[in-house]
Amino acid sequence: MQHLIRTDDFTISEIEEILEDAKKFSDGRFERILQDKIIITLFFENSTRTKSSFEIAAKRLGAEIVHLDVAQSSTKKGETLVDTAANLDAMHPDAIIVRHQNSGVPKMLSNNIKASIINAGDGAHAHPTQALLDLYTLREHFGDLRGKKIAIVGDIKNSRVANSNIELLSRFGMEVILAAPPHFLPKTELRTTHFLESIVDEVDVIMSLRTQTERHSSQSYASLKDYASDFCITTELIGDRDIVLLHPGPVHRNIDICDALLADKRCKVLKQVTNGVSIRMAVLKKLITQS
Amino acid sequence: MQHLIRTDDFTISEIEEILEDAKKFSDGRFERILQDKIIITLFFENSTRTKSSFEIAAKRLGAEIVHLDVAQSSTKKGETLVDTAANLDAMHPDAIIVRHQNSGVPKMLSNNIKASIINAGDGAHAHPTQALLDLYTLREHFGDLRGKKIAIVGDIKNSRVANSNIELLSRFGMEVILAAPPHFLPKTELRTTHFLESIVDEVDVIMSLRTQTERHSSQSYASLKDYASDFCITTELIGDRDIVLLHPGPVHRNIDICDALLADKRCKVLKQVTNGVSIRMAVLKKLITQS
Amino acid sequence: MQHLIRTDDFTISEIEEILEDAKKFSDGRFERILQDKIIITLFFENSTRTKSSFEIAAKRLGAEIVHLDVAQSSTKKGETLVDTAANLDAMHPDAIIVRHQNSGVPKMLSNNIKASIINAGDGAHAHPTQALLDLYTLREHFGDLRGKKIAIVGDIKNSRVANSNIELLSRFGMEVILAAPPHFLPKTELRTTHFLESIVDEVDVIMSLRTQTERHSSQSYASLKDYASDFCITTELIGDRDIVLLHPGPVHRNIDICDALLADKRCKVLKQVTNGVSIRMAVLKKLITQS
Repeated sequence: MQHLIRTDDFTISEIEEILEDAKKFSDGRFERILQDKIIITLFFENSTRTKSSFEIAAKRLGAEIVHLDVAQSSTKKGETLVDTAANLDAMHPDAIIVRHQNSGVPKMLSNNIKASIINAGDGAHAHPTQALLDLYTLREHFGDLRGKKIAIVGDIKNSRVANSNIELLSRFGMEVILAAPPHFLPKTELRTTHFLESIVDEVDVIMSLRTQTERHSSQSYASLKDYASDFCITTELIGDRDIVLLHPGPVHRNIDICDALLADKRCKVLKQVTNGVSIRMAVLKKLITQS
Repeated sequence: MQHLIRTDDFTISEIEEILEDAKKFSDGRFERILQDKIIITLFFENSTRTKSSFEIAAKRLGAEIVHLDVAQSSTKKGETLVDTAANLDAMHPDAIIVRHQNSGVPKMLSNNIKASIINAGDGAHAHPTQALLDLYTLREHFGDLRGKKIAIVGDIKNSRVANSNIELLSRFGMEVILAAPPHFLPKTELRTTHFLESIVDEVDVIMSLRTQTERHSSQSYASLKDYASDFCITTELIGDRDIVLLHPGPVHRNIDICDALLADKRCKVLKQVTNGVSIRMAVLKKLITQS
Repeated sequence: MQHLIRTDDFTISEIEEILEDAKKFSDGRFERILQDKIIITLFFENSTRTKSSFEIAAKRLGAEIVHLDVAQSSTKKGETLVDTAANLDAMHPDAIIVRHQNSGVPKMLSNNIKASIINAGDGAHAHPTQALLDLYTLREHFGDLRGKKIAIVGDIKNSRVANSNIELLSRFGMEVILAAPPHFLPKTELRTTHFLESIVDEVDVIMSLRTQTERHSSQSYASLKDYASDFCITTELIGDRDIVLLHPGPVHRNIDICDALLADKRCKVLKQVTNGVSIRMAVLKKLITQS
């Protein structure tokens, strides 16, 4: 049984196959190939977009989704996480989609159960389907990505989206530059900068990350505005340069990206959402029908 | 793409078509014509009956329902309502069913997204599928409604159910009389009364509305009893007159309608619930397959 | 319309038929025989395992599940439980699966509505599908159960699982012994003991019940440890005796059963979970297609 915990669980050729399937699905060429399959969602962190995206992906292929309401679950009755998962596994689902606030939980579960585990985001560790949909969106736009440059902007240190994209986009030949204030930068061998202006002339893509206000509850609005004055992607910053804008959503308007650019053709935020469904269809197909 | 925000979004002939489809569906004549269609529910107000009714309607026609758990949603992460809807829309659902405590929200969303918006109740503005199922229930009972008289009773001023029924039933030829205490009456050109006794000899239908205790939290039980003594539909009031009783539910027993009448054949409350599923099937069919 | 409120709602021959169907379903021999059927879940008590098990059972047979979110439901709007159920019934579901903290609620509902009521646990009264899956698990292991002895261990007095198993397993020829501290024992004509050691040499099966910490919130950890020192099923207690261990889950590790035995082949806890899906498929088939 194959799992998807991190992007490097898949080889380049496996990813190419996923991108091809996603393209077919985007074009409406698909059937109920997952009819009679049962997929459990086990989300310990709230999520509108990712959970809905997986659910729609599964249902488009004819699979059945069973949501575990974790807030009301057995974990409240003194059951361990592994026991909860083992019990779910004993009902023989075909896959379990897990989101958890702690890094490593999906991996741990995959070591203990038979169903395919799909990581829908764990702590600051990984969010592989997000990186795959970003890759798909960029491939759709550019074709070959070798030699292209992307700046990832924002709270990179705490971002599973950044982690997964750094691994995946590097593997497909992109140069990754990290742009953030010092306290948001991880230890890295990648090129870094504290000044967006210094790299705006050379990048092909800017990926803005979500400012995590709900994780930094002590952070004042003043400091968010301070952040925005340096790192919000604005029309003044990029002008008419041919730069593709990505963001994993939900976007903080005028903190992450300005209103004008959100409405601009260079901004692919809604395209990412659309592509997310196709990528997740392809991932579900691969893990459930081929392993 | 056609939406259903208010009853007057549909012409008389469109409504006749919906009533005919609903009749077929009530007779069990339907197939999985919405197989592979995805319908999102986006309920910002709690609802048991309306949400379940839409869900059962959709599933009877083979569609898939994706519930957005709004309490846990991106709106908590600082995303605007329009952005949330635009993101859902980017997943290419076929329809989004919206309930919101503020009037006008479904209309606003329909201006910004591609999927069909179905209004499942917005503030005190409109509740079109409720009015359609009431129309269907009355047509089933009376046939032609021209010249028939209906008294709508209760907190009419704050009632989206009353608003939608006034528009729709008037259009189908009924005379509408509003019966309520002064503070529950809207400004209107319709005939009004504060005394049920004064109209009970001439009406063919009485539609009792739900006393909204949860919206008038300061209202004491004493005043609810006072209300009931004047406006509860009782056996003493209607005697053996041939009057059809409607209520959108949930009924406050012995405040809105007395126990005895709720068990009486003239009371169509459960018939309304049954018809609600058929009407919503017909509405979903029309909006999803014909636009 | 047939309901399942208690295990004695079914005759021996009906139960044999259910066990046969469950066996077929366990072997993967089933089709979408409940396609186009609508099943409502109405859970007034939280449940991960039972609700998911019913949901997966229903979906494996092609039925549609509609969850009523009771915490947000009409019961909050002053509607009685019977009215809520009557309204759901008016939408013509094929079955309603009910869990309620009060004994007798499923029975009361079955007297007032047309859909099949399936009791998923009511107060300390009954949990028939749990007993059926326990029976199935034991039959699978032993074949004929006549003359076999089972000790039920723990808070028997407050346990619907114990109640249903006592009725059902006795009917299939097992001798039931109750092992518990005095305050956990019901008035009974069955054999009882306060000392597990006194019966461990003669029993074929031990069914440990869940210590209900959430129902005895004043109970200190000290007393749970005291309980465990007398009634936890441990390797020291059963040694290498050929005893099958059952538990309805979720298990309190090292309070109900020790870690080592939970990993032992004699422990059928996960097998019970797997069998639960098959049994519930068989129950749904019987109630929905044959009545």
